[in-house]
Amino acid sequence: MAIRDLFQAELRVVNIGLPMFKQSLDRCGVRAIEVDWRPPIEVDTQALAAIAAAAGVIERANEKAVEAILGGKPVLIGMAQAIDAVPGMTRDTILHAGPPIAWDRMCGPMRGGVIGALLYEGMAATPQEAETLAASGAIRFSPCHEHQAVGPMAGIVSPSMPVFIVRNEDRGNLAYATVNEGLGKVLRYGAYGPEITARLRWMEQALYPALARAIEKLGRIDLKNIIAQALHMGDEVHNRNRAATSLLFRQLAPSIVRTTPGSEQAAQVLEFLNGNDHFFLNLSMAASKATLDAARGIAGSSVVVAMARNGTDFGIQLAGTGNTWFTGPAPVPDALYFPGFTKDHANPDIGDSSITETNGLGGFAIAASPAIVQFVGGAASDALRYTRQMYEITIAENNVYQIPALDFRGSPTAIDVRKVIERNILPVIDTGVAHKEPGIGQVGAGIVAAPAKPFEDALLGLARALALGAAPSPTQETL
Amino acid sequence: MAIRDLFQAELRVVNIGLPMFKQSLDRCGVRAIEVDWRPPIEVDTQALAAIAAAAGVIERANEKAVEAILGGKPVLIGMAQAIDAVPGMTRDTILHAGPPIAWDRMCGPMRGGVIGALLYEGMAATPQEAETLAASGAIRFSPCHEHQAVGPMAGIVSPSMPVFIVRNEDRGNLAYATVNEGLGKVLRYGAYGPEITARLRWMEQALYPALARAIEKLGRIDLKNIIAQALHMGDEVHNRNRAATSLLFRQLAPSIVRTTPGSEQAAQVLEFLNGNDHFFLNLSMAASKATLDAARGIAGSSVVVAMARNGTDFGIQLAGTGNTWFTGPAPVPDALYFPGFTKDHANPDIGDSSITETNGLGGFAIAASPAIVQFVGGAASDALRYTRQMYEITIAENNVYQIPALDFRGSPTAIDVRKVIERNILPVIDTGVAHKEPGIGQVGAGIVAAPAKPFEDALLGLARALALGAAPSPTQETL
Repeated sequence: MAIRDLFQAELRVVNIGLPMFKQSLDRCGVRAIEVDWRPPIEVDTQALAAIAAAAGVIERANEKAVEAILGGKPVLIGMAQAIDAVPGMTRDTILHAGPPIAWDRMCGPMRGGVIGALLYEGMAATPQEAETLAASGAIRFSPCHEHQAVGPMAGIVSPSMPVFIVRNEDRGNLAYATVNEGLGKVLRYGAYGPEITARLRWMEQALYPALARAIEKLGRIDLKNIIAQALHMGDEVHNRNRAATSLLFRQLAPSIVRTTPGSEQAAQVLEFLNGNDHFFLNLSMAASKATLDAARGIAGSSVVVAMARNGTDFGIQLAGTGNTWFTGPAPVPDALYFPGFTKDHANPDIGDSSITETNGLGGFAIAASPAIVQFVGGAASDALRYTRQMYEITIAENNVYQIPALDFRGSPTAIDVRKVIERNILPVIDTGVAHKEPGIGQVGAGIVAAPAKPFEDALLGLARALALGAAPSPTQETL
Repeated sequence: MAIRDLFQAELRVVNIGLPMFKQSLDRCGVRAIEVDWRPPIEVDTQALAAIAAAAGVIERANEKAVEAILGGKPVLIGMAQAIDAVPGMTRDTILHAGPPIAWDRMCGPMRGGVIGALLYEGMAATPQEAETLAASGAIRFSPCHEHQAVGPMAGIVSPSMPVFIVRNEDRGNLAYATVNEGLGKVLRYGAYGPEITARLRWMEQALYPALARAIEKLGRIDLKNIIAQALHMGDEVHNRNRAATSLLFRQLAPSIVRTTPGSEQAAQVLEFLNGNDHFFLNLSMAASKATLDAARGIAGSSVVVAMARNGTDFGIQLAGTGNTWFTGPAPVPDALYFPGFTKDHANPDIGDSSITETNGLGGFAIAASPAIVQFVGGAASDALRYTRQMYEITIAENNVYQIPALDFRGSPTAIDVRKVIERNILPVIDTGVAHKEPGIGQVGAGIVAAPAKPFEDALLGLARALALGAAPSPTQETL
């Protein structure tokens, strides 16, 4: 057919890729069909053969991983300052989100967070001093994940910051997370300066002691129970935490009132919590971390135990490949941007919060949270579709976390890197988007697909580990 | 076909009525189809003709009713003791749920509630004395609804009881409701005795002043906003109020702490609220009452402004028929009964809480609350079906109350009695079930269809009112 004829005939379109092109055609009344096509994931055939040959070993290892993940019992047991609790924390250490990264490759929001932390710690008097210090090599940067910790967005943890201590009662391992600062100009989005320093100090000197006393009085707070309830209440506990925050608030409030000297101080603490619907996010992350860390070090297992982004690289870790990170460039989210912002302003994907997806929550449980789909631009049916798709790349359904809209089916849990490659379906992450310049804050929210490269590399890494003979003895290492 | 042959051939069943018969056959592998058949509603043809002839008048009147209902802005503005606030309350008055009823026709739980209230008021020293007094004619019994009030289950309001004051900021009218006592042995299920009296006294002497001061300090609490949020969080604000209670708790807590003398007393008040996920129910009811009362007295309107049950009769009122009640026998719910209880133990349907359904909430919004369908025995798809069906008998979709699972469609609002008759679809009510003996409490929960008779009679009543010439001047009476 000549091009000329094409435009004289009635237009019929086959759309490949972004559904929004079809949506535009639909609005114009042009007949179009949508093909869900993605570029094939290509992996070395020798590695694939090695993985296929070890299927039995992998299955047995994965059973152990699933048992550890489903058996996880994360409970909040206390708080401390990072220097006193987080393993490997020193006075010159700053932890960050995602896989390892040096100062020179850090993105804007992460650099901003580092500057803010150095100002808060009193290690620098001005942002310029802080930058010089950060670049000097005198500061040890290290991923939260390598210190049993997780942090949202920039994920900065500095020695004086108060952290929640979460214990996995099933295996006894601990996980740590900072306290969520709220919205607006906050450190996790790379903001720094007097306002941020003052809030961090108030959190250290007023909020932390009040919360720590209240938690101590209660003894333990069952986070798995709160998350399970919150999934019945419209949260997916990544981008939406309103219900979980409310349930935590209800548990904490009487105890805060009893243990805080002075009713005005107690009221201020309660107002801070009430003012931040994301307050529970850091606990949902620590609960997921404590759960998944129990599945680390199971030789031969193809289960993903961490997905994390530092704003430059997207990294994953497998149960069967020890502490190796498999990385690729972090994508810039196709998000719904707030008025005045576009994709040009967006930083590549950032934060440890994708630990929730790794644990079958967040984007994996988004069918439980139609309101968040509305927030990121979509319909309730999209939410069902995302969650249904994630069952194709996971090997278990959670026994406690349920999706009401799917008749209380357990959330898709334990990502199998083999299935990701085989099905060519990448994990969906339901995330906030940071401005690429430090300190501006959130510019949007969206559903992001993880990049393929870390999963391709992880499969190769697993094949290598199996070849090295780690496979025949799938004994669990110490956590 | 001879009967003999029927049982020799393969059994094929056409089931009419209760789907559970088909479910049993399904389990046995017997082929069956389900026919959704209901007995036809029969109404006098002359009345139907009169209603049809007045269609224009009715449509215009209904537009006003819908405007009033959608425009409703219920806010909590304060508290008082019933004697000081509720219109027409006197020292010898006891208000009850549902349409008017005398002592001799009252069901067990309502009698129990009256006895409990007389003990609490100090008007009787023993249950026997209370019964004698109640039967003597010295007590004036009157429906809550006729005093701008609503009460769950027995719905008892006695002079000393603290009540919430809800103002409809759109029209200025007020509504009142008592404070929810919690679960277990409580007055609204007909329990009485020292334990109940002691709780009611604590509520009057400790809880009420604390709540009243906290609300006064806040000035106003926007109930419409809380309800709208709660629908995004798995509540339908009738049988499930966990989210709404949590959101209210978060708003009240800092203010309670600031205004309650003594942190232990504040902590006890917070613990009482935290201990009762139904705490918001009475406010959801008062908010619905304040909203619907604004649509009363619109001559010619076929919109239902109240559905209420006293445990003996089920009554409704229309916008276009003044204060007339149209009643029929209250049905015994086909509920999911708690272990140890059956339909034989159940009291007929009771309570003013169906004011939530009348306002497009509760059973009408049950698609927002899949968890409650699980509680009453059903699947998430049943919840969608119930709500979808209610669009067939309503004439508006709420502009603020949304159903996430239906892509945020407004909840079905403003029941048109004509549609109920024409479509032969009765309103669904998502209700708790009381034991028929006083004081035992809740024995189940379920989805109940309203009886047909009140709607048949209401249509006749409307036809009569139109014939009497009220129709040509659809001016709104004073509230």
